[in-house]
Amino acid sequence: MSEAGPGPGPVAASVCASATAAGGAGGGADALLVRCRALVRPALARAVGQLHPWTSEMAAFSLGWADVDGTPEPGASEGKGVRQALAVLGAEAVGADGRAAVAGAVAVELVHAFSLLHDDIMDGDTVRRQRATVWKAYGTGPAVLAGDALFALAVQSLAEVPGRHTGPAVRRLGGTLTDLVRGQAEDLCFEGRPWTGPGAVPPDAYRAMAEHKTGSLLGCAAALGALLGGAPDTTVAALDRAGRHLGVAFQAVDDLLGVWGDPAVTGKPVHSDLRRRKKTYPVLAALAADTPAARELAALLDTTGTPAVTGSAALPGPGATLDDPATAAHAAFLVERAGGRDATLREAADQLDAARACLRGVPLAPGPSRELDALLEFLLHRVV
Amino acid sequence: MSEAGPGPGPVAASVCASATAAGGAGGGADALLVRCRALVRPALARAVGQLHPWTSEMAAFSLGWADVDGTPEPGASEGKGVRQALAVLGAEAVGADGRAAVAGAVAVELVHAFSLLHDDIMDGDTVRRQRATVWKAYGTGPAVLAGDALFALAVQSLAEVPGRHTGPAVRRLGGTLTDLVRGQAEDLCFEGRPWTGPGAVPPDAYRAMAEHKTGSLLGCAAALGALLGGAPDTTVAALDRAGRHLGVAFQAVDDLLGVWGDPAVTGKPVHSDLRRRKKTYPVLAALAADTPAARELAALLDTTGTPAVTGSAALPGPGATLDDPATAAHAAFLVERAGGRDATLREAADQLDAARACLRGVPLAPGPSRELDALLEFLLHRVV
Repeated sequence: MSEAGPGPGPVAASVCASATAAGGAGGGADALLVRCRALVRPALARAVGQLHPWTSEMAAFSLGWADVDGTPEPGASEGKGVRQALAVLGAEAVGADGRAAVAGAVAVELVHAFSLLHDDIMDGDTVRRQRATVWKAYGTGPAVLAGDALFALAVQSLAEVPGRHTGPAVRRLGGTLTDLVRGQAEDLCFEGRPWTGPGAVPPDAYRAMAEHKTGSLLGCAAALGALLGGAPDTTVAALDRAGRHLGVAFQAVDDLLGVWGDPAVTGKPVHSDLRRRKKTYPVLAALAADTPAARELAALLDTTGTPAVTGSAALPGPGATLDDPATAAHAAFLVERAGGRDATLREAADQLDAARACLRGVPLAPGPSRELDALLEFLLHRVV
Repeated sequence: MSEAGPGPGPVAASVCASATAAGGAGGGADALLVRCRALVRPALARAVGQLHPWTSEMAAFSLGWADVDGTPEPGASEGKGVRQALAVLGAEAVGADGRAAVAGAVAVELVHAFSLLHDDIMDGDTVRRQRATVWKAYGTGPAVLAGDALFALAVQSLAEVPGRHTGPAVRRLGGTLTDLVRGQAEDLCFEGRPWTGPGAVPPDAYRAMAEHKTGSLLGCAAALGALLGGAPDTTVAALDRAGRHLGVAFQAVDDLLGVWGDPAVTGKPVHSDLRRRKKTYPVLAALAADTPAARELAALLDTTGTPAVTGSAALPGPGATLDDPATAAHAAFLVERAGGRDATLREAADQLDAARACLRGVPLAPGPSRELDALLEFLLHRVV
């Protein structure tokens, strides 16, 4: 059953064949993320410090700044800060000082922390970044409260920015918040839909979900930076669209990692998304193919917990479910054979191209524009 | 043990001795609430209709518009709409058309629905307005999502208002959201504090909690109405302060109902807050008294689940807890004997007077001003 292994090598290597064009996508983006975190961190820490001590403690834990007892844990479990970097670069790309974007960067990071926190409750996830999730560490009720506190703080932080950009900035954040929640609703509703037939999830519905759930906040981050940096509406809108495409690409790569990612790096069990029967892009794309592997995959998925009777030597025996590692591995093999992996790589590359086209369509300062490119590619290369 | 009964007659009758001064506080306020609900409802329904169908269904259930299957249930379990009425009256009191306040009214009603929904999860409450709570009816994860959707929609609805008032309006809402969440955090943290001694909850901490948890949104409602109606800052601030005082009064009455309210009217078991060991104003005020009843109450509360050994004939026997109806009834008797009930009535009356003083300190149109007075008194007279 060696052919049912986790697939040909690391996922990320082949996502962006053109990545090297921008140069330094790895180290350059790392340094950029460090710089943006350093710029935004004081204001972010100040905002979190304004919360009630209890919610502040949970917020610090969720941001990776402290352990569950409140002991500072500098950087150990901190996120990369992609959204704050997009905000800072959004401002710099329109010729403003990155500091103009700080309030927007704080708001999007807080919204991101809120959404991870509440999504972990809804998804029942117990581990994030190699640590317990907030609900697992503090209880469900307190985690709901901590998420609400971050959400409220995001709105307040941005609304308190003095100046003429506040109204449009908060309007943009408000639309993003509803998009984000809509995306989570769509994703949860996918779970109840069939794998095949008229009720199955078409690729466009998946893209809309990914754009809402992931793209809206990435787009908002870049757009807020530009807006607070004084950019014209067309530039702000282009950065928003770029971020939305990036979000779909990001989600597609996330889906690849959820099936073929290295557990030591992702912190999730191998084939975790398959075992949870998530409606991910690779599986949906595989099922859409008209091939024997696609049909075998459909039969396997439709008969979870019951014997998959197809006579294939690679198929697991009677009684197998996707919880069974061998069955999940076989499903991953079928997804790949039916073209699901390649289709997802293409989708990610296409969305990345679309994001780049949005950026090329408006006048941006060359230096920050190159940094934006590097960040885009870094995100698609990520292995966590 | 008849002396350990639920206390002398209905709570609400004695709260506002001066209520009749405004005339028609009952019927007048009812008609006013109906008028404001009719004015705001189309915009509120339009906003809720923009949500993802699943969250829209849960939102409609939480607002009392539909049953758990989505079947319309007009008015049966709908709230009174106090916050939307305060917003409309806030605008009318500053000489504007009530329609100017509609976006603000929608926002505060959505925030209120969000806070009930998430608070019910945190508090583990299974019944609200004689129906299952959202988490009980749909599950915890979906209820978290529905609350988030309402929260996001509130921000978006207000942020999208065209005109120069949007920035200040959203700034006010942002501050209110963080206050609201802080109040819930404070209330939950009270549960872990001792009844007596240095860690006990002092009255000022209770007032701050009630102002945050209940007063901030009532104040925001009235202030948003005035702000959207074009009032000067001093008037807006006065209406906000009036609402905050009203909130503390409202919470105090709520606490009275939680101990002595009629279960047939409140929908909660008799002595429910006592049985849940909530740190309510009547109990805190009783414990602050230096009387035998206060000391007996302290001993009873400090020995939950263990025999209360004081020799009083009225005391329940060994092994009693506050879950035991007779013990809870005796605790209610002691709260009253130690002056907790009277102190709470005084607190509510004082806060109501302070609210009225805020309203008298700024120029308001006479008709809407009288309606505001009637609404204030109606709220303190409420028995649900």
